[in-house]
Amino acid sequence: MTMYVVGHKIPDSDSICGAIALAYLKNQIDEPAIASRLGELSPETAFILDKFGFEAPEFKESYAGENVYIVDHSELTQAPDDIAQATIVGIVDHHKLGDLTTSTPLECWIRPVGCSNTIIKMMYDFHNVEIPKDIAGIMMCAILSDTVIFKSPTCTTADIKCVEALAEIAGIEDYKALGMEMFKVKSAVEGTPVRDLVMRDFKDFNMNGNKVGIGQLEVIDLAVFDDIKAELAADIAAMKNEGERHTMMLLLTDIMKEGSEVLVISEDDTLIERAYGKAPTDGKVWLDGVLSRKKQVVPPLQDAFA
Amino acid sequence: MTMYVVGHKIPDSDSICGAIALAYLKNQIDEPAIASRLGELSPETAFILDKFGFEAPEFKESYAGENVYIVDHSELTQAPDDIAQATIVGIVDHHKLGDLTTSTPLECWIRPVGCSNTIIKMMYDFHNVEIPKDIAGIMMCAILSDTVIFKSPTCTTADIKCVEALAEIAGIEDYKALGMEMFKVKSAVEGTPVRDLVMRDFKDFNMNGNKVGIGQLEVIDLAVFDDIKAELAADIAAMKNEGERHTMMLLLTDIMKEGSEVLVISEDDTLIERAYGKAPTDGKVWLDGVLSRKKQVVPPLQDAFA
Repeated sequence: MTMYVVGHKIPDSDSICGAIALAYLKNQIDEPAIASRLGELSPETAFILDKFGFEAPEFKESYAGENVYIVDHSELTQAPDDIAQATIVGIVDHHKLGDLTTSTPLECWIRPVGCSNTIIKMMYDFHNVEIPKDIAGIMMCAILSDTVIFKSPTCTTADIKCVEALAEIAGIEDYKALGMEMFKVKSAVEGTPVRDLVMRDFKDFNMNGNKVGIGQLEVIDLAVFDDIKAELAADIAAMKNEGERHTMMLLLTDIMKEGSEVLVISEDDTLIERAYGKAPTDGKVWLDGVLSRKKQVVPPLQDAFA
Repeated sequence: MTMYVVGHKIPDSDSICGAIALAYLKNQIDEPAIASRLGELSPETAFILDKFGFEAPEFKESYAGENVYIVDHSELTQAPDDIAQATIVGIVDHHKLGDLTTSTPLECWIRPVGCSNTIIKMMYDFHNVEIPKDIAGIMMCAILSDTVIFKSPTCTTADIKCVEALAEIAGIEDYKALGMEMFKVKSAVEGTPVRDLVMRDFKDFNMNGNKVGIGQLEVIDLAVFDDIKAELAADIAAMKNEGERHTMMLLLTDIMKEGSEVLVISEDDTLIERAYGKAPTDGKVWLDGVLSRKKQVVPPLQDAFA
């Protein structure tokens, strides 16, 4: 039975490139697979697919009765809405272990590295399958994106070695320049509706029974937000109410200054100070050195909720 | 920080041998590790450790504040009671994905194979670490136990190839004879208190909110139970009440005839017929070809509860 390989809702480059790369690998080892996606491509991902000549994976929201291989998360809230009616045959991920469960044995390739595509490279190596040049290219870009060109504290030596190996396969000499080009695409916010910006890389988390939404925008210079910061703040307040969320946060991450300005609105104003040791002023706080939602933002917040 | 490597409650040979084998591997790659256990050794496991010259791992029930690597399950009910106060750094398992979650990234080596030790062998290969002769011996025995010397439907070609490779490392020529010797030890029930027999390989499951206890005894000839079957039935009835369980089952598995006589007591008498297409008579039913709790007993029961 053919499996669908699909990343999380509001897919990022790791979810999309990972689905394409893993579906290709599975087909090579006689496990028929189709890459799919749960949402629109971000400009960054569109740039990557265009650069290496790929179409977007099939848009598919319903998976009842299907076999599904999950990429880049293990959370119910990030999975297809009808995942309970599907059979999860595998998970490849690099986050904390979430609340997905299964009723049958499966494979999980979960590692504490910077990107799911680094693990997918390990899967290629395990199965001794050669990575095509164009697939190496999109895998490499996904890793450069997730690790913020190696600047993120989530980046491991495994990620760096993996990028180097993939760059060689893809025939890319200056992969850091390509990474910067990618982040320039990501930094273009002009003309994009505010809600689209907030949702571009957005995840809901269940923290001790409370729904917490955290979006992140990574740019080369925070000045791009100067004219729209008030609108962004108003929009996360609206999303807090619409989604009955306890807390909404938007991380405006400056990858050159290596820190994030956090816009926040919460039922509990003391939460942010408890989590990060610094209280917001007018719903804003600068967190120096904070680049990673997964490693630097979520765990302290989860502890503050516990 | 040193991690503890620990299997499930009421440890079987896979949990104990896996903890020893994985702790050794972790120490070789400069990740200090100590094998531990949550309960007494079964006669089979004691036989294996004695045969290859190992002491039992440290008995340790509390893990608050510790780093823990979980072997052979991903279920809260099978984990240390205070696992929520520990940091799970990894999971190696071959069962369905359970309800353990973490607040930080971890490694999960989960594969749909017959035994966790088959996956631990993959971990040795990945890290390019040589398996010592005596460790190969206990890993091999764990796989022969979990796969019922390859007869279980959970057995995969990966398990068979792994046993062959480990037998060569351990210098064991006739591994099937060693497997039979092991199952003879397992078949000796005389003189053992009835409760100890029920608990020898026992697991509680959460099925749609209901607590379901399932024990299994694998023997070479079911005749060993002739004189004590009534006592076993009375004891699972007692355990149902004591543990406020919805259902209690004890699988008496005949590994030569390749089937299981199931003793069952449940809040819902129609459950067994719904799950297995055959109704019990006087709390007993023979299920032909059923050797695996994980693959043949749990999933249909879970579906019947859903």
